[in-house]
Amino acid sequence: DPNLKVFSLNSNRKLAAEIANVIGVELGKCSVTRFSDGEIQINIEESIRGCDVYVIQSTSSPVNEHLMELLIMIDALKRASAKTINIVMPYYGYARQDRKARAREPITAKLAANLLETAGATRVITLDLHAPQIQGFFDIPIDHLMGVPILSDYFKNKLMDGDIVIVSPDHGGVTRARKMADRLKAPIAIIDKRRPKPNVAEVMNIVGNIDGKTAILIDDIIDTAGTITLAANALIENGASEVYACCTHPVLSGPAIERIENSTIKELVVTNSITLPEEKKTDKIVELSVAPLIGEAIIRVHEEQSVSTLFD
Amino acid sequence: DPNLKVFSLNSNRKLAAEIANVIGVELGKCSVTRFSDGEIQINIEESIRGCDVYVIQSTSSPVNEHLMELLIMIDALKRASAKTINIVMPYYGYARQDRKARAREPITAKLAANLLETAGATRVITLDLHAPQIQGFFDIPIDHLMGVPILSDYFKNKLMDGDIVIVSPDHGGVTRARKMADRLKAPIAIIDKRRPKPNVAEVMNIVGNIDGKTAILIDDIIDTAGTITLAANALIENGASEVYACCTHPVLSGPAIERIENSTIKELVVTNSITLPEEKKTDKIVELSVAPLIGEAIIRVHEEQSVSTLFD
Ligand SMILES: Nc1ncnc2c1ncn2[C@@H]1O[C@H](COP(=O)(O)O)[C@@H](O)[C@H]1O
Ligand SMILES: Nc1ncnc2c1ncn2[C@@H]1O[C@H](COP(=O)(O)O)[C@@H](O)[C@H]1O
Repeated sequence: DPNLKVFSLNSNRKLAAEIANVIGVELGKCSVTRFSDGEIQINIEESIRGCDVYVIQSTSSPVNEHLMELLIMIDALKRASAKTINIVMPYYGYARQDRKARAREPITAKLAANLLETAGATRVITLDLHAPQIQGFFDIPIDHLMGVPILSDYFKNKLMDGDIVIVSPDHGGVTRARKMADRLKAPIAIIDKRRPKPNVAEVMNIVGNIDGKTAILIDDIIDTAGTITLAANALIENGASEVYACCTHPVLSGPAIERIENSTIKELVVTNSITLPEEKKTDKIVELSVAPLIGEAIIRVHEEQSVSTLFD
Repeated sequence: DPNLKVFSLNSNRKLAAEIANVIGVELGKCSVTRFSDGEIQINIEESIRGCDVYVIQSTSSPVNEHLMELLIMIDALKRASAKTINIVMPYYGYARQDRKARAREPITAKLAANLLETAGATRVITLDLHAPQIQGFFDIPIDHLMGVPILSDYFKNKLMDGDIVIVSPDHGGVTRARKMADRLKAPIAIIDKRRPKPNVAEVMNIVGNIDGKTAILIDDIIDTAGTITLAANALIENGASEVYACCTHPVLSGPAIERIENSTIKELVVTNSITLPEEKKTDKIVELSVAPLIGEAIIRVHEEQSVSTLFD
């Protein structure tokens, strides 16, 4: 369909090329550079008039650069008469700032949603939002994809006849662990942190049976990797035979890589929702591609749109 | 007035302190830092409920960081029940992207205006917009201040009995040069660049009498300093006895400092609308403060608002 155009900005060029391949189109021609003073310069180098445009961009680090690239691209597409502007954000930055936890805090996840709509986005496709409630921050349609099947399939093949248990590193992640456990027909366990008294160190209690088992820790985001590496160590101390960890979004900032290397985690399985720079790639880290998942989603969304147009 | 609050973000902390001093208030308490992954973390550390808040922030380089700081701060202020949110942007970044000069270009200056309004700004105070038309990009009140009086006063004192001529480095800046000339009771001249034939070097023709005079070049923005240094050299070659240069906004990116140092410009006079980092400060550069101008504007705006409230 010549009316389907896929453009990549700077956050995930390799993933975007894979997605274009899944869909069976060439990536749209477009340069995203900087003027001498650091202002973003975008040149869309082919006509997109009347087209359904899909823009691939995670708002991963450097988050403000990537978000502004996306907003400026949307503005350019709108002024160039795109029919629909579909934003594909494998990783939605600022998602953790999704509520006022303290007085006078911003809700930056909502601000980002408003900015995308103001710029002119007409639809959003994203993956494993930190809180599913963020879908409600948008007044335009949003498609929310899940990384659990991809991560589960990897472990299904790898640990075929292991005695495994899926572990959530905190209370917030139990639903996610339950979904993976269903797919792997495995039990779950939960790391239950609590502080017995104020100013006393946290106690890591494990709810569920992990004795002699292969534990798979699952989270949505691994950022500084403090939680996940402490959890892994607690699992080994409490009798797990080995520990794997996985997440959809490898933010991996600050001390993350060092912590993972020095931890009891045997392997960390992540997706390419965030591009791993070369210096963060280690033998412990396995990267799975979300290109088939996102490519299929774009095909489905695009067919829906063409269909609905028939009845307009 | 306890309902008048002034906050500074990260672009112009020194200028903000001077502005607070002119107004006679303390700067509001607020920290603007980064999480480990680079996301912006803002903590407003005092109540602003029901207050008229003024936020000082230029969207100078790094422009995307400074713009996002401003948007997130506006969001936080709005959610903390500020009565009005007045954005003081001594330098308005992305102002040069104010029209579609080529097909499929964004109009980022308009996008930035929309983003500020969407976040919740209720008024904008700014200085020497690259194009005054940008005022019309806003649906909220905008106060547009002028740097010419400050720059003119400096030269009035410095070159008291000189034989001076005010020079615009291009056609676009003639109105600005005329304003300065009026204040200094001096004639104007214009650098008239033209290309005699395609693919032939530009010719710099000078319209107006500069012979034996002290020339003062004036522009709004000096970015890479190519235009201004070529203009200065042309003035000397054509008989000017010495050349000063001035501008409101010292962007000074890339080769700017080196070009200025190696040029025939005797002194470059700028304002602190953009903070000059230490490594850009040289003996040739003189910095004038816009704190009195902006402080007075805030006082006037605030009185107006209080007055208008009386008749609500
Ligand atoms: N980029 C970030 N890095 C670390 N913490 C963050 C970040 N953004 C927001 N937060 C904090 O993380 C908390 C939300 O995390 P959670 O409880 O896991 O949903 C909020 O209290 C935020 O202040
Ligand atoms: N940050 C920037 N640095 C250099 N050129 C720019 C920048 N932003 C926009 N432009 C270009 O500058 C031109 C406008 O400058 P002017 O003709 O002086 O108004 C436009 O054609 C833009 O493409």
